[in-house]
Amino acid sequence: MNKNSSNTMALAPNTSNKRETVCIFGTGDFGQALGHKMIQSGYRVVYGSRSTQISNLIPKDAEVLGHAEAAQKAAIIIIAIQRQHYNFLTPLAEVLRGKVLVDISNNLKLNQYPESNAEHLAQLLPGCKVVKGFNTVSAWALQSGTLDASRQVFVCGDDVEAKQMVMNIVRALGLTPLDKGSLLAAQEIENYPLQLFPMWKFPIFLSLGLTAFFFLYCVVLDIVYTYIYEKKDFSFFIAITIPNRVCPVMALILLALVYLPGIFAAIIQLYRGTKYSRFPDWLDKWMLCRKQLGLIALAFASLHAVFTLVTPLRAFASWRTGKGIISQVLNNKTEPLDHTNAWLSDSYLALGILGFFFFVLLGITSLPSVSNNVNWREFRFVQSKLGYLALILCTAHTLVYGGKWFLSPSAYKWYLPNIYILSLIVPCAVLVVKFVLIFPCIDKRLTQIRQGWERNPKYSK
Amino acid sequence: MNKNSSNTMALAPNTSNKRETVCIFGTGDFGQALGHKMIQSGYRVVYGSRSTQISNLIPKDAEVLGHAEAAQKAAIIIIAIQRQHYNFLTPLAEVLRGKVLVDISNNLKLNQYPESNAEHLAQLLPGCKVVKGFNTVSAWALQSGTLDASRQVFVCGDDVEAKQMVMNIVRALGLTPLDKGSLLAAQEIENYPLQLFPMWKFPIFLSLGLTAFFFLYCVVLDIVYTYIYEKKDFSFFIAITIPNRVCPVMALILLALVYLPGIFAAIIQLYRGTKYSRFPDWLDKWMLCRKQLGLIALAFASLHAVFTLVTPLRAFASWRTGKGIISQVLNNKTEPLDHTNAWLSDSYLALGILGFFFFVLLGITSLPSVSNNVNWREFRFVQSKLGYLALILCTAHTLVYGGKWFLSPSAYKWYLPNIYILSLIVPCAVLVVKFVLIFPCIDKRLTQIRQGWERNPKYSK
Amino acid sequence: MNKNSSNTMALAPNTSNKRETVCIFGTGDFGQALGHKMIQSGYRVVYGSRSTQISNLIPKDAEVLGHAEAAQKAAIIIIAIQRQHYNFLTPLAEVLRGKVLVDISNNLKLNQYPESNAEHLAQLLPGCKVVKGFNTVSAWALQSGTLDASRQVFVCGDDVEAKQMVMNIVRALGLTPLDKGSLLAAQEIENYPLQLFPMWKFPIFLSLGLTAFFFLYCVVLDIVYTYIYEKKDFSFFIAITIPNRVCPVMALILLALVYLPGIFAAIIQLYRGTKYSRFPDWLDKWMLCRKQLGLIALAFASLHAVFTLVTPLRAFASWRTGKGIISQVLNNKTEPLDHTNAWLSDSYLALGILGFFFFVLLGITSLPSVSNNVNWREFRFVQSKLGYLALILCTAHTLVYGGKWFLSPSAYKWYLPNIYILSLIVPCAVLVVKFVLIFPCIDKRLTQIRQGWERNPKYSK
Repeated sequence: MNKNSSNTMALAPNTSNKRETVCIFGTGDFGQALGHKMIQSGYRVVYGSRSTQISNLIPKDAEVLGHAEAAQKAAIIIIAIQRQHYNFLTPLAEVLRGKVLVDISNNLKLNQYPESNAEHLAQLLPGCKVVKGFNTVSAWALQSGTLDASRQVFVCGDDVEAKQMVMNIVRALGLTPLDKGSLLAAQEIENYPLQLFPMWKFPIFLSLGLTAFFFLYCVVLDIVYTYIYEKKDFSFFIAITIPNRVCPVMALILLALVYLPGIFAAIIQLYRGTKYSRFPDWLDKWMLCRKQLGLIALAFASLHAVFTLVTPLRAFASWRTGKGIISQVLNNKTEPLDHTNAWLSDSYLALGILGFFFFVLLGITSLPSVSNNVNWREFRFVQSKLGYLALILCTAHTLVYGGKWFLSPSAYKWYLPNIYILSLIVPCAVLVVKFVLIFPCIDKRLTQIRQGWERNPKYSK
Repeated sequence: MNKNSSNTMALAPNTSNKRETVCIFGTGDFGQALGHKMIQSGYRVVYGSRSTQISNLIPKDAEVLGHAEAAQKAAIIIIAIQRQHYNFLTPLAEVLRGKVLVDISNNLKLNQYPESNAEHLAQLLPGCKVVKGFNTVSAWALQSGTLDASRQVFVCGDDVEAKQMVMNIVRALGLTPLDKGSLLAAQEIENYPLQLFPMWKFPIFLSLGLTAFFFLYCVVLDIVYTYIYEKKDFSFFIAITIPNRVCPVMALILLALVYLPGIFAAIIQLYRGTKYSRFPDWLDKWMLCRKQLGLIALAFASLHAVFTLVTPLRAFASWRTGKGIISQVLNNKTEPLDHTNAWLSDSYLALGILGFFFFVLLGITSLPSVSNNVNWREFRFVQSKLGYLALILCTAHTLVYGGKWFLSPSAYKWYLPNIYILSLIVPCAVLVVKFVLIFPCIDKRLTQIRQGWERNPKYSK
Repeated sequence: MNKNSSNTMALAPNTSNKRETVCIFGTGDFGQALGHKMIQSGYRVVYGSRSTQISNLIPKDAEVLGHAEAAQKAAIIIIAIQRQHYNFLTPLAEVLRGKVLVDISNNLKLNQYPESNAEHLAQLLPGCKVVKGFNTVSAWALQSGTLDASRQVFVCGDDVEAKQMVMNIVRALGLTPLDKGSLLAAQEIENYPLQLFPMWKFPIFLSLGLTAFFFLYCVVLDIVYTYIYEKKDFSFFIAITIPNRVCPVMALILLALVYLPGIFAAIIQLYRGTKYSRFPDWLDKWMLCRKQLGLIALAFASLHAVFTLVTPLRAFASWRTGKGIISQVLNNKTEPLDHTNAWLSDSYLALGILGFFFFVLLGITSLPSVSNNVNWREFRFVQSKLGYLALILCTAHTLVYGGKWFLSPSAYKWYLPNIYILSLIVPCAVLVVKFVLIFPCIDKRLTQIRQGWERNPKYSK
């Protein structure tokens, strides 16, 4: 969508009113890309390099000088060299005194060094104002102008003015600076580009584990059991039938797990009689990954929907339909419409559709750009009210669909309960406790606590 | 997605170059949360409190003093107390003179007081520079760092510099300030977090009303009529069959209602011969909620699609299929393929799919982050050209599907027209008038008017 | 979603601390709308006009004066007149000296004049600081407050301070300024609102061309051939059967075309032994439209999914099912379940569903607001790893579905290969070459090259 790629952007070599001069130490990949982009944005760029005879990929409008001369020409020096070469900067300490040094380095793994690169630089050159920044942007993105990934540049530093100067450059390059605080935040900023969905790790491992368990459970009960006792080979169930049993179970359990921590929190607050005490750590962490759990639940629910809708296309389904009709014909009788069955089948389908509909609404409102456009009350309304509505509808869908198996002995092969029965435990528990919690007497007390009331006020307020 | 939760953010207690000191009056929930966040962002925080012996939830790095001493330490004072206690500030007027007071209060209901809290504060302390802000952020969001909901902080105030100072704090906390103008905007800002989808109210009530009407209409014609005259119980139609009749009707009518105000506007402009006169109020309001109408129509269309796709899974559908085949067998004849029928069935399905496809495209481009990336011409192209294409395709889909009923007497049970016929009135009217409006002679005149031409220029220009 | 429409925004006529005065030359549509919005945001507005007796649509709080007097009252003058009338400004050169002129004009077509309007203005009035801006916002959007389309205002200019003043106004109006550099960027900014999806043009024309070709190919082989040799009329295949053959083919080919340029780039880098040389132009352009190709492929895949899911609803499908069952009955035998067939049918459905699932995930992460929230490593993980997974699954889906036709002579009507065979060429080629490229020996060399290693270093570094 970014139609204003940098290569069509205006260069401003002759305009009298140029931006300030910026010095870049290092003529590597990122130094080159950054220099190009800065010249395009109207800055005068001076490279500091060991050799002034330089690759023809250095932007033409840039000057290349020795490190000391280059540094003297600018108030801001971008250190585009690797941490292990920082030591060569110490002889330049006098020249660099008072200058703003921008540390743009990245490490190869999380917490590679005891202190962050930027703090290391600040210790080496105590007379300089070190600012961390630009490490979250890729050279390729700068060069191509296709900043499809993040435009955010995290910036931190102890000197507010130096930070402001760097943030102005960031803005001038068409990126979005985000002030992350003092230089102590550098460790976090340096770790950021090395992270791979940190908030998603626990939810994804949890769902993979549960999925594997339920998959095996179904294989044993549906394929192995049938093969042993009925001598029928239903191994092809692995492709669609069993995934379509595991997906709805996972969706329902994960959706319930989104609302379970809220239930726990309410119980803890009621029991302690105050909100002024921290929740246990595991509960805090659980609450922070509710969104991820919910989105994974939505993915499973979507897969369930598609797996269900393709049923009539399966060779097995058309074979079964044909078999049913032919047996009716051969018995020379037409079965009348079973109204109970029609009601049940239409009900669970309708419940499932509505539950899925509200679930998708929840998913859409969790898109960053949509949630940025709703206020706090609207967000809570959608995530809490609509969320519980979706949970109720999906639980009812499962109950109506699988209800008949609860009492049927054939649902307990090898004395193991059917997977539908297992899937209902958590959601039903959540709904029952939530139902108790909204009883007026309990709800009133909970509201009081959340507004600051305490049963045993321990602290003077 | 916000992986940089505040609890991992760097505290900066020892850095020499700290941000300015901020004073917070009130040690309640929001005062605590805001203080924590500010200290994390490098501010020095002083609490002003009646009692200096204080809850251990106050951030450790914060000082707690009496109100007057605390106020003297900072240029900015955040008033984290409720409006009914504002009066206790009047004795401090001398100390507060010239300071920036940030009113962060919220009310419990819309327009609770004649003037906004911020204006009330400004009247009580005329020597202070009052800025409204932070009221749209929740304490929980500040504390947990999971700003899933809005990061926008609306700010208003009469003093531009004071406002700028507050906006800088907002930015430093990682939030997005949005200048809403002078302090007169405080009422609006205070109402904002109390609103619950104000733009959605009318479209939602309209659709609920219409849905209820059409649902009853279908129940009467499809279930009651059949029960009375044919003695058949089709009550299970309530679950899927009837919703799947109401949803497409609602989708089509609401989609047509999105384009109807544009038609009215064009007619009014042609009739008046000028664009320099305001549209009637109802038309202005209608035009402003077109997006919401369109999205609700899309929701109905999606439900219709899913309801339709589950048809083969219904017990009723498989019973009907079986019955049809068995009757062929018992009559000992195989029916040949009815080509007209095959054409009709494939056509309305294809038209519906394409219409739905363009409809979904419209929905995607109305996502805030997508529409921010298209220019005005592209937005108009999508919303107008693709929108009309979707309307034409969906109307054609309905015509091909329901067309055969127009002349069939069985479609007029109890002399009432079938619901398909009702649903076509508005879209066909819109399309016919639009077709007339794009006639070259009329279109040319309309373009002239929209470019500023007037039939009877009343004003000197 | 923009609930804070301008008409409810506070006017600030009596506040002492007003913003600066802004002068607007021209009382046309855009001048009026901009004036209204500025007054609402607290600016004092003076119109410069030939006639001071003026339309009653000029905001009431605005003054209307002659051009010279109006210009003297403000430091910023917004030139809301058309380029062809710029000449009348030259007599005012003395009055305008040193002022900031904001050129908001748009042209009717791309590159209408040799130099941009803003540069033309700067040449006419060399003593003024010309800033380009506001041209991407529509008068209607300003007036109605429904800025559904872009809130971005591109700003450029040679004078940094003048630009800053204009950007402050943009921010105060609730819009987002974006600094595009020096005045040379004005041409680009003026072309921006005239563009209609420039990045989409090539991908869309390519897909339209390919679609037309494959559609005709299918019509010839499926309808014409059948009609000539089997005397059967399957013309109704045009509505669903053939589209559902073309869509998956297009989706697969376009998805493979997304990954093909990356393959080419790797081969070129390996061959040249360096990354420090530009790719050919066509490859650069191809790489920049990969996202668009991918999204169009996703659209085709979605259409394919829906076309497939409606299959059981088609009159043709139910006729064919009935025919199959009746023939079994008449032959008085029940066919047993064909296990190979059940495996095949379930496998390709499951592969297709999973492939589509990952494809949709890719689509969601390409939404601007989502991709803004992932770091570079996460973006690459999703777009590269998940993308190849989707390609592998979709290719396998097609292979399992169409594999049996490879050796069947009936797939080569008129010696032409079946469309499935054609569709597999590009994806299989991409996957095979990619498989070779990830061999450790080749991958290691490629990684070295991408980290800066060169086989024949030509430049001193």
